[in-house]
Amino acid sequence: MTALEERLKRKERRLIGSIIDASTALLAQQQHDIVRFAMGSPGEDLIPSAAFDACFSDQTPGRYAYGATEGEPRLMSQILGIAELSGETTTPDRVLVTAGGGQGLDLAFKVLIEPGDLIIVEGPTYTNIVGMALGYGADVLEAPTDEHGLIVEALPALVREAGRAPAAIYVIPNFQNPTGTTLSRDRRVALLELAERWGSVIIDDDPYGLLRFSGDPEPSFAELSPNDPRVFRVRTFSKTLAPGLRVGWIDADPRIRDLASRARQTMDTCTSVPVQHAVARFLEEGGFETHISRLLPIYRERKEAMRAALSEQFGEHVVSTDPDGGFFLWVTFRGELEHIDTDDLFETALREGVAYIPGRSFSATGNFSNALRLTFATSTPERIREGVARLGAAIERLLLQSAA
Amino acid sequence: MTALEERLKRKERRLIGSIIDASTALLAQQQHDIVRFAMGSPGEDLIPSAAFDACFSDQTPGRYAYGATEGEPRLMSQILGIAELSGETTTPDRVLVTAGGGQGLDLAFKVLIEPGDLIIVEGPTYTNIVGMALGYGADVLEAPTDEHGLIVEALPALVREAGRAPAAIYVIPNFQNPTGTTLSRDRRVALLELAERWGSVIIDDDPYGLLRFSGDPEPSFAELSPNDPRVFRVRTFSKTLAPGLRVGWIDADPRIRDLASRARQTMDTCTSVPVQHAVARFLEEGGFETHISRLLPIYRERKEAMRAALSEQFGEHVVSTDPDGGFFLWVTFRGELEHIDTDDLFETALREGVAYIPGRSFSATGNFSNALRLTFATSTPERIREGVARLGAAIERLLLQSAA
Repeated sequence: MTALEERLKRKERRLIGSIIDASTALLAQQQHDIVRFAMGSPGEDLIPSAAFDACFSDQTPGRYAYGATEGEPRLMSQILGIAELSGETTTPDRVLVTAGGGQGLDLAFKVLIEPGDLIIVEGPTYTNIVGMALGYGADVLEAPTDEHGLIVEALPALVREAGRAPAAIYVIPNFQNPTGTTLSRDRRVALLELAERWGSVIIDDDPYGLLRFSGDPEPSFAELSPNDPRVFRVRTFSKTLAPGLRVGWIDADPRIRDLASRARQTMDTCTSVPVQHAVARFLEEGGFETHISRLLPIYRERKEAMRAALSEQFGEHVVSTDPDGGFFLWVTFRGELEHIDTDDLFETALREGVAYIPGRSFSATGNFSNALRLTFATSTPERIREGVARLGAAIERLLLQSAA
Repeated sequence: MTALEERLKRKERRLIGSIIDASTALLAQQQHDIVRFAMGSPGEDLIPSAAFDACFSDQTPGRYAYGATEGEPRLMSQILGIAELSGETTTPDRVLVTAGGGQGLDLAFKVLIEPGDLIIVEGPTYTNIVGMALGYGADVLEAPTDEHGLIVEALPALVREAGRAPAAIYVIPNFQNPTGTTLSRDRRVALLELAERWGSVIIDDDPYGLLRFSGDPEPSFAELSPNDPRVFRVRTFSKTLAPGLRVGWIDADPRIRDLASRARQTMDTCTSVPVQHAVARFLEEGGFETHISRLLPIYRERKEAMRAALSEQFGEHVVSTDPDGGFFLWVTFRGELEHIDTDDLFETALREGVAYIPGRSFSATGNFSNALRLTFATSTPERIREGVARLGAAIERLLLQSAA
């Protein structure tokens, strides 16, 4: 084996990619009709494409030149207003426009994490975090969750057992991915205290927080602990506007923001400048709040349709979360269906015409084999009923196969 | 000092950012008229902005959804044709669309470089390479160059002295940044042989190759050694079309391309999708070759104007390169001006109304203190003459100050 091959083999062990993207590629190859509960993406019908198209002919001078790494001032000023919507007062020296929330997380790892560091995550958590941690040489500790999010009370014992404090605690506090649950106020307060005690940073990833269609919001970390250098916020327009734009931002202590900016200068310099201007114009015209208020009743209806269909199809044999916002239901099989392996089910389901993400994809340790994530946001109620019926048919087929 | 502060201090030593971007930020703060010889960017007058604007209203379905990490098929197919223009036959499984050439380099480091690796670069070289190497924990070895580019014959002795083979050799073979020189055919062949012998990868960064306005092209590495897994090509539309788009690509052995794709999945997922469609449409309409053929005589005229102005202003006291393409002249002071320090000169020049990049910025070892890089591509001949006159005035002022 040549030196290059050996090097590639070592790299291949650390760069494991994304289960979601691999699943997307697999889906793209299918020729038959599939109800898409897999990808965490707004439905094509809910993206204001025509409005964006119009925003691209803005003719601002410099829109095709290199931009400042921190972002176009015009967009940054709009972002300050959007942060206010979540109760997060911020200032321009805390903001850096990113290529979506994914790049915000990549920057968090780049500026905060060193090889051998420990990172606490929710179990289950966002699929890509485990791959990111591996790429940066960090170790992941999966902490338990319940219907109020991360069980913060369980962390001290876990940290004692691990024998070291975490460099970072990664949480999705609102309508978590994949569970849809929201971290309670008391636990937010307790987490801030633990971060202070341990010298850890809270990576506060909140793609869905503005998509609340019922109930009252919990206070943000920023409200509970203003200007806390230990809170690194990752934000994105991917779920509220459109993922293809690749526009998000980080909101962090100015010193950490500056470090992220330096890191970004040797990555991709800045976010695509015409896209920043188009998004800024959309926001300037008041498009954001109008758009969100149009989305909320639609998402609530879709969530209710999915919960009703699951209940009708599976009765007592599934338990699903009941989120007040966001995109996802987390479904766990029980009773007669308790031994279903959702990895095994996936191919059968795809043949039946329904796609989802298996539970194990959200775990660093292979947990949640009898669970799966369903996106309710992407499909109409009618398609949702069809997709859940197909899921039922796939399970029947799988059970027949196992019995045979 | 808290644990977080200690961590940030360690990170700040490794994440040094970009001298060019810092200089751009400084320039943006100036209120007076400045002739801009600093940034390596096409002039605002040479970017086909109106044509791009029109390409953004393409209405392709899915243009605001997540795209495949590798790139939109429509753009990838156009890129195959553009590679042919440089004599580089390629295939879709070798291509990954990136957020500009910078991200292509970041991916090269991410998939090929391990901490402690040695990277050979040209002295002088692209400013950001040293920062990238530091960020990835690699050591940089600066090799000498002459009017035919990297002195490949000097490498074996340097490597013997270093006591280890380089993991990568980073070269800009055509109209190098900052010197403007082109690597000769013989040296390209010799470099391929050394890479084979050492098990090294050649990171072949070619932002300017298609901007040849005189002379005949040298054969590409791809022509000299087709499908060589040791050649990792980094390409971009930043210099030929517009840098603000942030669209480029890598062209690499399929296994390495796949690894880059996995790495990218946990970075920013994909390049902004509407921008990919807009660039694809511009290319589909034949916009690229038309645009390049319009640029070439303009760039030749600008280069000649700059060389004439330098000669008139400084006579024997400067020597400058005479590139057949690209954006840059590399200017070295000699004779009475030999002891000019271009870092010291910078502030005076800025006050006189002219900006450039000092020579030391292109070196890992503080070389080239009496040299500087001038971008001829961005300014009209008239502005070029004005800028060179201001540079002369700045030098006179600096010499008077030193004498006083």
